[in-house]
Amino acid sequence: MADLAPREQERSALDALLAPRSIAVLGASSDTAKIGGVPIALLKKAGFRGDIIPVNPKSDTIQGLAAVPTLSAAGRPVDLAVISLPAKLVEGAVDDCIAAGVRAIVIFSAGLGEIDEAGKALEARIAARCRAAGVRLVGPNALGVFSPLTATFATFSTALHATWPEPGVIAIASQSGAVGSYCYAMLADRGIGISHFAATGNEADVTVADLIAHFSHDPATSVIVAYVEGIKDGPAFVAALKTARAAGKPVVVMKVGRSDLGAEAVASHTGALAGAARGADAVMAAAGAYAATSMDDLVDAAEAAATGVFARGRRVGVITLSGGVGVLMADLAANEGLTFPPLPDKAQAAVKAIVPFASGRNPVDVTAQVITDITRVADIAEIAIDGGGFDTVILFLAHMARNLGVMDQLIPALAALRRRHPDVPFIVCARHTPEVRDRFRAEGFLVNDEPRRAVRLAGLLAELGRAPAPAGEVPADAVVRLPSGSLDEVAARQILAAAGIAFPPSATVRTAQEAGAAAAHMGGAVALKIISPDIAHKSDVGGVRLDVAGAEAVETAAREMAEEVARKAPDARQDGFLVTPMLTGGVECVIGSVTDPVFGPLVMLGLGGVLVEVLRDVVFRPAPVSPETAEEMIGALKASALLLESVRGRPAIDRDALVATIVRVSQIAAANRDAIAEMEINPYLALPGGGYALDALIVPHARPVEP
Amino acid sequence: MADLAPREQERSALDALLAPRSIAVLGASSDTAKIGGVPIALLKKAGFRGDIIPVNPKSDTIQGLAAVPTLSAAGRPVDLAVISLPAKLVEGAVDDCIAAGVRAIVIFSAGLGEIDEAGKALEARIAARCRAAGVRLVGPNALGVFSPLTATFATFSTALHATWPEPGVIAIASQSGAVGSYCYAMLADRGIGISHFAATGNEADVTVADLIAHFSHDPATSVIVAYVEGIKDGPAFVAALKTARAAGKPVVVMKVGRSDLGAEAVASHTGALAGAARGADAVMAAAGAYAATSMDDLVDAAEAAATGVFARGRRVGVITLSGGVGVLMADLAANEGLTFPPLPDKAQAAVKAIVPFASGRNPVDVTAQVITDITRVADIAEIAIDGGGFDTVILFLAHMARNLGVMDQLIPALAALRRRHPDVPFIVCARHTPEVRDRFRAEGFLVNDEPRRAVRLAGLLAELGRAPAPAGEVPADAVVRLPSGSLDEVAARQILAAAGIAFPPSATVRTAQEAGAAAAHMGGAVALKIISPDIAHKSDVGGVRLDVAGAEAVETAAREMAEEVARKAPDARQDGFLVTPMLTGGVECVIGSVTDPVFGPLVMLGLGGVLVEVLRDVVFRPAPVSPETAEEMIGALKASALLLESVRGRPAIDRDALVATIVRVSQIAAANRDAIAEMEINPYLALPGGGYALDALIVPHARPVEP
Repeated sequence: MADLAPREQERSALDALLAPRSIAVLGASSDTAKIGGVPIALLKKAGFRGDIIPVNPKSDTIQGLAAVPTLSAAGRPVDLAVISLPAKLVEGAVDDCIAAGVRAIVIFSAGLGEIDEAGKALEARIAARCRAAGVRLVGPNALGVFSPLTATFATFSTALHATWPEPGVIAIASQSGAVGSYCYAMLADRGIGISHFAATGNEADVTVADLIAHFSHDPATSVIVAYVEGIKDGPAFVAALKTARAAGKPVVVMKVGRSDLGAEAVASHTGALAGAARGADAVMAAAGAYAATSMDDLVDAAEAAATGVFARGRRVGVITLSGGVGVLMADLAANEGLTFPPLPDKAQAAVKAIVPFASGRNPVDVTAQVITDITRVADIAEIAIDGGGFDTVILFLAHMARNLGVMDQLIPALAALRRRHPDVPFIVCARHTPEVRDRFRAEGFLVNDEPRRAVRLAGLLAELGRAPAPAGEVPADAVVRLPSGSLDEVAARQILAAAGIAFPPSATVRTAQEAGAAAAHMGGAVALKIISPDIAHKSDVGGVRLDVAGAEAVETAAREMAEEVARKAPDARQDGFLVTPMLTGGVECVIGSVTDPVFGPLVMLGLGGVLVEVLRDVVFRPAPVSPETAEEMIGALKASALLLESVRGRPAIDRDALVATIVRVSQIAAANRDAIAEMEINPYLALPGGGYALDALIVPHARPVEP
Repeated sequence: MADLAPREQERSALDALLAPRSIAVLGASSDTAKIGGVPIALLKKAGFRGDIIPVNPKSDTIQGLAAVPTLSAAGRPVDLAVISLPAKLVEGAVDDCIAAGVRAIVIFSAGLGEIDEAGKALEARIAARCRAAGVRLVGPNALGVFSPLTATFATFSTALHATWPEPGVIAIASQSGAVGSYCYAMLADRGIGISHFAATGNEADVTVADLIAHFSHDPATSVIVAYVEGIKDGPAFVAALKTARAAGKPVVVMKVGRSDLGAEAVASHTGALAGAARGADAVMAAAGAYAATSMDDLVDAAEAAATGVFARGRRVGVITLSGGVGVLMADLAANEGLTFPPLPDKAQAAVKAIVPFASGRNPVDVTAQVITDITRVADIAEIAIDGGGFDTVILFLAHMARNLGVMDQLIPALAALRRRHPDVPFIVCARHTPEVRDRFRAEGFLVNDEPRRAVRLAGLLAELGRAPAPAGEVPADAVVRLPSGSLDEVAARQILAAAGIAFPPSATVRTAQEAGAAAAHMGGAVALKIISPDIAHKSDVGGVRLDVAGAEAVETAAREMAEEVARKAPDARQDGFLVTPMLTGGVECVIGSVTDPVFGPLVMLGLGGVLVEVLRDVVFRPAPVSPETAEEMIGALKASALLLESVRGRPAIDRDALVATIVRVSQIAAANRDAIAEMEINPYLALPGGGYALDALIVPHARPVEP
């Protein structure tokens, strides 16, 4: 742990960013509407207790504070400097800050790395100088940071005009200032405060990953919300997620640039790297971070995470004043992978004893009749929760949560129940007033006002409650030796077979006649493939014939194949034929690996044929994976039922063999990450008793990768 | 049109319901919090201009109004009577109403048809009596009706305590009072008024379908929102949707009970028929109604529909103050089937001339820099809209719509642009104030505050703008003759082939030896199937062998098959074997028909194999369908790319042949609706040059259906 000291230093520099004792603003303005005027106005409004030092060579006084012409003229130590100057003045200002002993810098200025190569070079220079000086730098092109806990406002966010931040347990780290502050404001609209806010802009130094790691150690923060466009340093991002996990702090992340369209827009609008959504999704899933897909999803997840009470499973109990809403929720349950198990008979009878017209299964429809004595809702909720064994409970109160008189009776009754079941998340869905919402929230309820989102919250709570599977390992025997040059299928089969992947018996022959003889020897129908180091997709050039039977037919097929391949791929070498027995039945999968430019080797599982090609029903995880993760990958496929169940009389496949193959491919990918760029077994035929790789492809890295 | 007069009478009775000149309340209470007290309190509050007649034998005065002991004692004509009495008094009260010449009745009382058979019988009795008297009846177990246009309040909705209705163009018809009033309140929270509200409860007489038809003729209503749990009369529902369509009034429907779980909950909580989600979805799609899946979706669709300006296509232009939100929207576009085509180069250059840092493609990121002169946003929007040829435009303004000074500049500039493009829907997404929202809305903008929902709205506008395909026809030659008794595959093939469905050549043989000879005669590999009138799913009992080649192999296979089938289905008759040439390549589909108990014959298209079995990738439409509808069905499949595109070098399939087969199956299903319960071609092999039915199943109705 030789690097502990610098890390501690970095952490303390980030403390200077979010809890500074003094703040200087370079380019401070007397106009509170101007970008250089906003932070001073905000600091004054917030009652910041430390020094505020406006720096402006043209004024002695800025917003009533004594200004200095240069930072060095301040003659006092400065923790945090904000640079709000034209782009061309930024480099000199950074040098001034370093010279003055500043510990952290926020640069608002735009027009640098997001514009052109010269801007990128300048960013790299100032970042290097800051690093050498032990100074942390946020930006440039950053909306900056603020914290209601420390009254720090090194930002020009317009969101703060409309909404003043209340203290809370959620920290926000966002590459985009607009998205971050929108998220902040959506939380504020729900009456939910934050601990810290930081928007990193061009990320010349401080990244969202740095902030995730920092917030993991922050006692005031219990949930971390992150927004990322491009991730440049994959391992740092993964390490940050693991740090947060180890600290018991849920991370909810929105990573944009998932679609091709989205990726294109990223590339054209920031200097960040994009297109790594597959890798980012994979590492988030592996690290137990929640990947949000929209702003409302992100904010819902943050709100759910902030309760600190997560679901142990996916069994949901619903108590509703509206049968219709109960049915609607039941309709939506499948989307979230939730089940609504029925109440035990005894509990159903007890519910009916209280409200005879109630439907007591689940959803428990207490009907609008309970309105005449609202405490009966609490009685029924008690029966349902005590008897149902639910992982999450949803209570739909329709309009009743706008009736304060009724709530005065109901909230204390439900709160007592809540205290008896502190480990079961409890969602109240109702049209409410802010006051009623806050009262419910103070008692540990999660409150919302839309049935679909209530069901979504139950799904989120189950996601948040799921511990990530254990990490995989890389055993020494997963290292393989690749021959130099490209590999044909035969070589790939040999390498993977030697590494423990199961292939059916096969024959490698030179001539069409030998192919016929080999087929006769095997008996039954065979698959016939061309052998060539130059052809990756054999079927595209007529290099695969399936289900050919009999020596003569196989010989003819081989001869025709050689001609067709020669015609379609005239430059490809032909090294003979591969003859394998025709296996049928089972489920065709694709198991492969790719090397993500940011996150390294990923292992992939997909379902074969059209499911991969058209529906892209595939799942990635960072390699290596544990058997538990491989199981999780199987379950994450849309068509996982094919692998998990016996479909239409066909016996279920051998899941252990499939899991072992996924694990092994992931180990080979990880152990040979410097040699193997891509690997693919397509198809892997999963059978009731075992499974076989029926094809093999290994693509080495174009050049050796530096260790 | 002999029934025109009664229909007119019905319509006028519904006018008495929603625009009565006088209202009596049976069971009127002096307590304004009691169900019988609420409508009188609401009518007084609303300033209802007609007579309010409390009926209560125990009081002379109710809430300051003179009460009568019985309805007949009123001595005045009464348009609408509200019955708020215990269940056991309802029947007598209805008789009193009829005797007094009431034209419409709303029954609040619960404890009737939703409870037991006796309640159902009572409901049927009173409904019949009302019908005979030309009186329309809402309920029982109904939350009732209200209308801000006519100050009519025949309801006990608690939603009205918190939110008073403003007049608007949206009419709400809901089986569930809670869902309907929740929808009403969600609209009201957005500042959107309604024309009428009606919750129908047990629907002894007036149904949601009746109300859809009624609102179609209401000049004050331009959008109809409907919530249905079970639909008892399919043709009436379809007719109502068509009436609304013909009147140019969009209908947005939430039909719950889609999931098995949901259907179970419906069955246990109302007396309505359920489980018809497939049929309901099919008829809604065919009639151009929008099927919402959640409350927010329903309300979003209603709000979008109320603008009256729909998208002509799916090309969306986005102008955004936040690049990140632009990327997020691009990520979400695919979910909605939207595209974000790039701006033409000239328009991109013009955008950059205004804001040099802008990214001008699409999303057009105007960056936060534009904040210094907001009218530049309008200039850029003008360039984008004039140059982009978009079907819908989204403008993301982040927090700026809370800044009234900025909006005073921007709204007039955008409004002028809006007036020049009145046919292009324009969505403003921003955190806003109610005032800013209303100002934008008054200029024809659709306003919301969450990026995912803004993209969803663009999708909704495209859905709402799509005209339904023309209806199908039933030609006389689609009528087939079924033999008596059950049909085996050979008979089904003959019937369908005679009706114009293409099958490959086949041989029907008695013995295994004949099967071998037939295969030899065909040449190549064959498929071999058992013939039996008693076996619907042959592969489940070993009755199918594919890809067998050679006379000897086929004979052996046939012999083994006969033994296996005899073992697995010992009671099934065996009538020999069907031998067909083995066709490969192409795409396997399933084309079939079912008879929906509510909506009649439906035609189904699915993708074969695992896609049908595991992913349930199927689409239904009411039979018969037009070729245009069949095309639409193909496009509606999740894996439609398989049928629409050339996948991995395989040429695209013959879509005309597939369309013709879907149309023909739908015609046969419709023409023989009284004879055929189900039909299935599984697989239909869609090939590049044509397509073939490879199997056929016809299931006659168990008993002849009365004409």
